[in-house]
This record gives sequence, structure tokens and C-alpha cells, in this order.
Amino acid sequence: MRRGLGFDAVPAADEAIRSAAHRRLDSLTKPPGALGRLEPLAAQVCAVQRTLEPAIVHPAAVVFAADHGVADRGVSAYPRAVTEQMVKNFLGGGAAISVLARLQGIELWIVDAGVDGDCGNHPRLIDAKVRRGTRDFVEQPAMTTEECEQALRRGRAVIDQVIPAGGNTLILGEMGIGNTAAAALLMHGLTGHPLADCVGRGTGLDDEGLERKRSTLAAAARRTLPGEPVELLAEFGGYEIAMLVGALLGAAARRMLIVVDGFTVTVAAALAARIDENVLDYCVFGHCSAEHAHRALLADLEVQPLLDIGMRLGEGSGAAVALSLVRAALGLFTQMATFEGAGVSEKST
Amino acid sequence: MRRGLGFDAVPAADEAIRSAAHRRLDSLTKPPGALGRLEPLAAQVCAVQRTLEPAIVHPAAVVFAADHGVADRGVSAYPRAVTEQMVKNFLGGGAAISVLARLQGIELWIVDAGVDGDCGNHPRLIDAKVRRGTRDFVEQPAMTTEECEQALRRGRAVIDQVIPAGGNTLILGEMGIGNTAAAALLMHGLTGHPLADCVGRGTGLDDEGLERKRSTLAAAARRTLPGEPVELLAEFGGYEIAMLVGALLGAAARRMLIVVDGFTVTVAAALAARIDENVLDYCVFGHCSAEHAHRALLADLEVQPLLDIGMRLGEGSGAAVALSLVRAALGLFTQMATFEGAGVSEKST
Repeated sequence: MRRGLGFDAVPAADEAIRSAAHRRLDSLTKPPGALGRLEPLAAQVCAVQRTLEPAIVHPAAVVFAADHGVADRGVSAYPRAVTEQMVKNFLGGGAAISVLARLQGIELWIVDAGVDGDCGNHPRLIDAKVRRGTRDFVEQPAMTTEECEQALRRGRAVIDQVIPAGGNTLILGEMGIGNTAAAALLMHGLTGHPLADCVGRGTGLDDEGLERKRSTLAAAARRTLPGEPVELLAEFGGYEIAMLVGALLGAAARRMLIVVDGFTVTVAAALAARIDENVLDYCVFGHCSAEHAHRALLADLEVQPLLDIGMRLGEGSGAAVALSLVRAALGLFTQMATFEGAGVSEKST
Repeated sequence: MRRGLGFDAVPAADEAIRSAAHRRLDSLTKPPGALGRLEPLAAQVCAVQRTLEPAIVHPAAVVFAADHGVADRGVSAYPRAVTEQMVKNFLGGGAAISVLARLQGIELWIVDAGVDGDCGNHPRLIDAKVRRGTRDFVEQPAMTTEECEQALRRGRAVIDQVIPAGGNTLILGEMGIGNTAAAALLMHGLTGHPLADCVGRGTGLDDEGLERKRSTLAAAARRTLPGEPVELLAEFGGYEIAMLVGALLGAAARRMLIVVDGFTVTVAAALAARIDENVLDYCVFGHCSAEHAHRALLADLEVQPLLDIGMRLGEGSGAAVALSLVRAALGLFTQMATFEGAGVSEKST
């Protein structure tokens, strides 16, 4: 744990409970392992929640939104104004995450981490704005060290503010025109993958736009490329990414289950894990995005996403869809009959 | 359509509605295509239901159960008695499909298609038993032509019996110790893939058991290998597989959405499509099973499964989990705001 950030250390998940969960899974009326990935998923939630009666209680989705100075360089298919417009769409109920949250009984919170605009007032909007967008990281650090640490702490504070006592499941999402550019540089700095392999089309750049994004990010990486995660985050990150890192560290310290969304949130998880490796014990990776570099980053983290259906929207949308698989896993774990209880014969060969 | 079976021809899905659905998807507040596979899925349901206001109404899961003469040759890791025991577990509420049906508001029906035992009486049990298990197909046809045609017709009749007017979504599952052996031979006969590539571990055979299963099926294939689908089905099929084929033909003729489960149900779908190719318009393939040959069969059918999480249980369990993705797709399609309605800027590059 980096000194001075003031984050509680994240406890490891309970491996004894995880083993007991696997023993229980093998007693249920199905061939061993026949529920596939739902089995280790159920066992992970048991290990996180320290119980053999796991449950999703008061699930919340928190979407952090912010703008990026680099967006003015044409690294996104959409204009910068869309960040603010989409915040209003989230709150108005018309965005994908709004719909999915309603469908699945997820409480939705939107955090203005640094939107370059006025998001107004709304009971589901948290004003945690650090600044109206980051600086252009091609020329200077995106944020100061103080802003970065402030964003990390505010990310944790938001979790403490919105998650009620007993709430145990967090879906993390983001919105920020230009943030896959920031995320690509962060992945490059964290993992050492060649920059070109970290850069994708984001919301849908054409070939020319992709080339522009690559050359813009290469210029930024030539300016500096710190190895230390908080310094890297300050150089290239966004306020929403820094708050995601803080939220991950804070929620894991509270032993919450965290359902991670796509590329940008996974980059935040990779940063959080570099600060405190136990964070990953609490993370379920909801899906593999169609954003170019996500698959390689998931492989680096040695984690397997639940869904692989070509989503690339952000907002927490892939994680929200994946929550239904977590619910299925826990329902099966807690409600299926045992061989003994149901009078079913066990394996004979 | 084969003469004499008396099945109504399956109408093609509505391609004009599918195109209109894609246009609507492109007007929603997300980059085009950013919902990945959920987009063509929503458009498919629109084309099936002939509406731009698609919905899942009264979803039902129908699990067909039967025994197989070949099971006495040790081609399964479980004893034959498990078929009957699991039928009772389904009805008692302790099986995976029982739990998933409860969690997702799916009405569950179990069909005794040919169980070698007495399944008793239960309001959710349909007695459609043709015979107490098929004959051993290594030595003789598994069923007579009359039995096969009877099973096909009963499969359709079950759908008409259990699906209320307005019910529009069907999950198909199966239970039958030994039925991946039957399904492997059917796939071999239908597709021409080498038999060894069609044979897998089923519920969990060890290496020795897998070798025994392969050599047993090779002996059966040397006896005969008809090319015509109903003859092939009579030679090697199970009563549950034949009823699945009839259910698929009947439900598609009724324009129902059919969520297909794993390897055995996909073999039934491949047979049904050989009888009437339009059946596939109505099928959503819920998942790719860990059963060895499923991936190749899905590729042959040129379809993509929604989930790929290593499930291999049957019972309709993978399809039931996948229904949550269908619901998400339809919720997003019908409830998301448009760019114009939400005042969000469209793509700029």
C-alpha cells in the first residue's frame, strides 16, 4: 500500500470458505463441475462474503463521469459535450445502464468526477467534481498529484456515501469522451504491452481516427511514462478513472463484491491491484469488451470475464448484464438439492 | 418437409421487421453496435414476434426425459436409474433447472418421453411415455419408425398442451442417462464429422469410459448410418430427442422464440432444421457447452451461442441462464432513449 493515501489495507478473501463452498458444490445434484464457471463464481462470492449462504443485497451501480483534455485532439468519435449529455441521459432513465439497473433492481448513482459542464441537480447525482476536465496530457500532466489523490479519496468517499449498511454488491461503470485514450496509456505504462496494442477504436473511430489516436498517445508517452501507479494515473488518467481506483480500494476494504465492467474499469482495477493486490479477490469481471486491448489486459490479470458478447458501451452496462449470472450462480448454490437429500445416485465410473 | 409427419410448415421470420429493428437500434443513445450481440438478438426477437415492441410472455421450460438401451454398455458416468431420480428432483424443486426456473419466473414442465421407471403423478409432469427406454442401438434400431413418428408428434402436442395462448417463449431441455451417446451418433450421421470428434465425456466419463463410449458408438455406426433425418433418429435417437425435434417444429410453426440449451438439444435443432430449415430463425442458442462436440455443431449451423461459460449439465440450465440476456436485450431495445429524444449529439467522425 502506498504511503499517505490513507486507504485501509484490503483483507484477502477467505480461502477456507472457498474450499468449503467447492465441497458443497460437489454435493449438489449435478456432475462435479457441470455448472462450469458458475461454480468458482459462487465459491468466490462465498469467500468474499465469508459465508456459505451468499446473497446479493442492495446492489448498486456507480457510474463515474469526467472529461479529458486530450479529447480536443480528436481521439474520440464523439464530441466532448456528450459526456455531460449522457450524464443527463443516465439520470433521465434513457441510457443503457438506466434501463439495465431498472430491469435488475440495481440502485443507480451517477458521480460527476470532473465533467466539463454543469450536470445540474438530481437525487441520484453526486457532485464530486475535481475540475472541469483534465489537462491535455500530450503537453502536461493530466492532473496534479494533489488532484489525483483527492480523486482517489473521493472515489472511496462516494462508496461510503451511497452504499447503505448491508449493501454488499457494487457495479462500477464510467462515462468520459476520450477515456479509452487515457486508459490505453495507463495500460501501456502498467503492463508494458506495446502502445499500439493498447489503443482501440473506443466508441467507434474510423481508420483515420484510430491512426490519429495512436500518434497522439505516442507523443504523450514520449513526454513521460512513470512506473509508479499513482504517478502514472496523475500523468494520463481521468478524474473518473482515479475515482474508480479509489472506489475499488474502498469497496474491497469493505469486503464488497465488485462487478467490473469493460476496458476502462479494468484498467482502474489493474491500477488498484498494483496499489493493493488483494483487490482482485473481490472483483468479478463482467465481460470482455470489443475494445481492442481488453482481452490482453484480462489475460495479464489472470482473470476470466463472464460474458464475451462484443459489448463496448461502458456505463457499467456489461457488468449490469453479468449480474444476472452472479445471481444465477448464488441461487443454484443456495437452493439446489444434494445427492443425499434428493435420493439421486452418485457417479458410478 | 417430410411427407406424412403432418407438421405445419414453419414460416420464415420477418426480415423487414428485422431491418426496421436494426434501424431503431442505431437511433438509440449508444455508438452503433455497442451493445454487441444483444443488438442482433433483439432484432431476431422482433423478426420472430413480428413487432418492434418485443416481449417475453409466459416463458416456459420443457424438459424431455427418457432412457437409452445403450446406457447398459457403460457409456455414461452415472447409472441409468438417475434419469428417473432426476425427474423426481426436477419436480421436487431441487435440480438446477428447478432453481433457475423459479429465479427467472419460468414455468417448468417435465415430460416423461420414455423413462425406464415410474415417474409418479405431479401437476407439472406430462406422461408422454412411448416405451420404457429405447432398444440398444448397437444391435438394432433404437426405436421403430412408428415409435419415432409418435414421439415427434407427441413432442409437438406437449407444446400445444402446456403453452397458454399468448405464451411466446420456450426453453428446451433434456434428461437421459446415455443421451450424449445418442446425440453423438446423430451428429455424426447428420454432419459427417468423424465419429471420434462427435463423442465427448458427457456427465464426466474418465479416459477409459470415453474410449468405451467411442468404440461402442463405432460399432453402432458400422451397423447402419442412414442419411435421412427421421430414419437416423429412429436408429440412434432417444424418445426425448425425437420429442425435442417435434417440439422445435411445433413451436417454430407457432412463431415462438425457442431458447436452445446444450449439445443434445442442439442436435435436435439440427435434425429439425434438416426437416424444415426455417426452424433456425426461431432459435436462440443459449450457450456453448463444455461437451466436446457442441462448438463444432454450432459452427456447422452457423450460429453463435450467447454464453460460453463451460456449463455441461443439460436440463435446459444453460438456456435458462441465457434467458436473462434475452430479457436484457429486449429491455434495452424497448426502453432506451433515442439521440433525438435525449438531446445527445451523434457521432462526429
